[in-house]
Amino acid sequence: MAQVSDKRLLRALRGEVLDRPPIWLMRQAGRYLPEYRETRAKAKGFLDLCYSPNLAAEVTHQPLRRFAFDAAILFADILLVPDALGQGVAFKEGEGPVLGAITDEAGLTALSLANVEAHLAPVFETVAKLSATLPNDVALIGFAGSPWTVATYMVGGRGSPDQRAARVWAYRDPDGFAKLIDLVTEATVLYLQQQIDAGAEVIQLFDSWAAQLPDHEFDCWVIAPTAKIVAGLNESHPDVPIIGFPRGAGAAGVRYAAETGVTAIGLDTGTPIAWARENLQNRLPVQGNLDPLTLVAGGTALEGEARRILTGFGNGPHIFNLGHGIVPETPPENVARLVDIVTSWKNS
Amino acid sequence: MAQVSDKRLLRALRGEVLDRPPIWLMRQAGRYLPEYRETRAKAKGFLDLCYSPNLAAEVTHQPLRRFAFDAAILFADILLVPDALGQGVAFKEGEGPVLGAITDEAGLTALSLANVEAHLAPVFETVAKLSATLPNDVALIGFAGSPWTVATYMVGGRGSPDQRAARVWAYRDPDGFAKLIDLVTEATVLYLQQQIDAGAEVIQLFDSWAAQLPDHEFDCWVIAPTAKIVAGLNESHPDVPIIGFPRGAGAAGVRYAAETGVTAIGLDTGTPIAWARENLQNRLPVQGNLDPLTLVAGGTALEGEARRILTGFGNGPHIFNLGHGIVPETPPENVARLVDIVTSWKNS
Repeated sequence: MAQVSDKRLLRALRGEVLDRPPIWLMRQAGRYLPEYRETRAKAKGFLDLCYSPNLAAEVTHQPLRRFAFDAAILFADILLVPDALGQGVAFKEGEGPVLGAITDEAGLTALSLANVEAHLAPVFETVAKLSATLPNDVALIGFAGSPWTVATYMVGGRGSPDQRAARVWAYRDPDGFAKLIDLVTEATVLYLQQQIDAGAEVIQLFDSWAAQLPDHEFDCWVIAPTAKIVAGLNESHPDVPIIGFPRGAGAAGVRYAAETGVTAIGLDTGTPIAWARENLQNRLPVQGNLDPLTLVAGGTALEGEARRILTGFGNGPHIFNLGHGIVPETPPENVARLVDIVTSWKNS
Repeated sequence: MAQVSDKRLLRALRGEVLDRPPIWLMRQAGRYLPEYRETRAKAKGFLDLCYSPNLAAEVTHQPLRRFAFDAAILFADILLVPDALGQGVAFKEGEGPVLGAITDEAGLTALSLANVEAHLAPVFETVAKLSATLPNDVALIGFAGSPWTVATYMVGGRGSPDQRAARVWAYRDPDGFAKLIDLVTEATVLYLQQQIDAGAEVIQLFDSWAAQLPDHEFDCWVIAPTAKIVAGLNESHPDVPIIGFPRGAGAAGVRYAAETGVTAIGLDTGTPIAWARENLQNRLPVQGNLDPLTLVAGGTALEGEARRILTGFGNGPHIFNLGHGIVPETPPENVARLVDIVTSWKNS
């Protein structure tokens, strides 16, 4: 019989209301830390860092040496999946990711599931290393991008403010675009199953570009593929909780929570607390949603916003996090201050 | 006694449910039209186009010669207000607007209300020309950016994906930032009052960067200044309806609708129709929310999405529009097709 873990993150994900919420931060390992920049400089490039188990495990550990986080998240990137599918991904300094854009069904012939698991083996090795070395009370989170968000990069060839290329393809040729989404969905299930086999205790699905999609598009490209991934993982690994993060979904988050089967939902910075309490937290644990820019500003803004969130979500299952990733200009001392505020909090 | 207008847009804004909604499109005058590009080339630059009454009136008229829109919107730009305040705005080809960034309270000394009305006199002349020349059944819409959105450009010096500069200033020094917001709010009231005096029959407030603001920030920088503008216009011009468009506000749109006093609310592309019907359209007219990318794609996606919106909002007061501005690569024939779908629609 599996032992039920008493790690704080896992308890919150089981729906427990704790004396204080667990805390971890999106991009807690990253450029705002000088030790990250030092390790990053040892790799040949960003992808090499992701594919080097020793270095990737090291940067995952770094924030935990400074801050009393309740979880570590695997250091990797959502674009490893297209890379493993054979698309070819490059990270150019100061430019972000660049991919050879796939803009129609014919372009899919260049992609294949055959090498996904072999290609991603170093990531699983990183997970195994982390599983063996993390402190006992720290939960290990694996992750992937959600198919829609990953597809926006695969089709656009890079990040874009409105994901125009993917959206226009999806409107013009929904059947062809669905083949791309299906392929990414299948690869993502394989990828996450192996992360769990290697030791990941929780999965987060990042749908960073879920905003501004009309109902039908949101149903087809965000909800349906997420539901498929959740079903696939539930079948192979029924005990592993899944946090879905449909950034910018707004009121559509209610449909997402009800229809995807995720264990918990991540809330972005703009999600009203009272609304989320009444429409989401009454059904499932919520995660979020401090503005990462309060970590840049520090001071009373940081304290005020952190306490507003702690108070607002304190009577239900809650995981303290940001509403978006840490930005590089964040002073590490502000992260320390935040972790102090949250870990010394007592729900009344 | 003022005569109540039977223009379709004004009837919808009075809460009437019509046989079919009025239609106009954000950026209906613009780069997707070859005749716009031709007129644009006659001006010395984009600002010169905005400040030349003959040219600005001409580009406002252009879409009405092709399409049976129920309204015309003044051709201008939300950054004319900082320009009139003395900040200095330049539009560089392919780069968008560039302003000398104001990043703290000391920077406000460069700004003044003294010349706002004189500086913007050419805009009022454009409005007067349009008022005299538009077809009788076409309503004339004046507009301004909302103070938060305008301030994000004034502080950042240009557009940015997360409006970081303005947001960090607002967190660090809310009192200083409030002075900037107050100044823009006051200038905007003057600007809009004169637009109405010159003949604008409806006002739209564009809050294009209202997304991802935490509750308290949304209340301070989006709701409060919008409420002040609405109160100022209601006092001087009680019969002029005001459409507020807080793009990306998500569930916070309910608070916006309840607390700003706007007559109608514009919905962005990502606003779920059923949710908006139950939480917004039951209280006030709604405007929107077709994805402008369906106008790029055309075909069945355009027809399907247009009909979904017509059906979804058909039982309440509704103004058909996009959920964001037309994009330059839009084929004009797709706009014609859309106008045909909407104007031949009959609510059942």
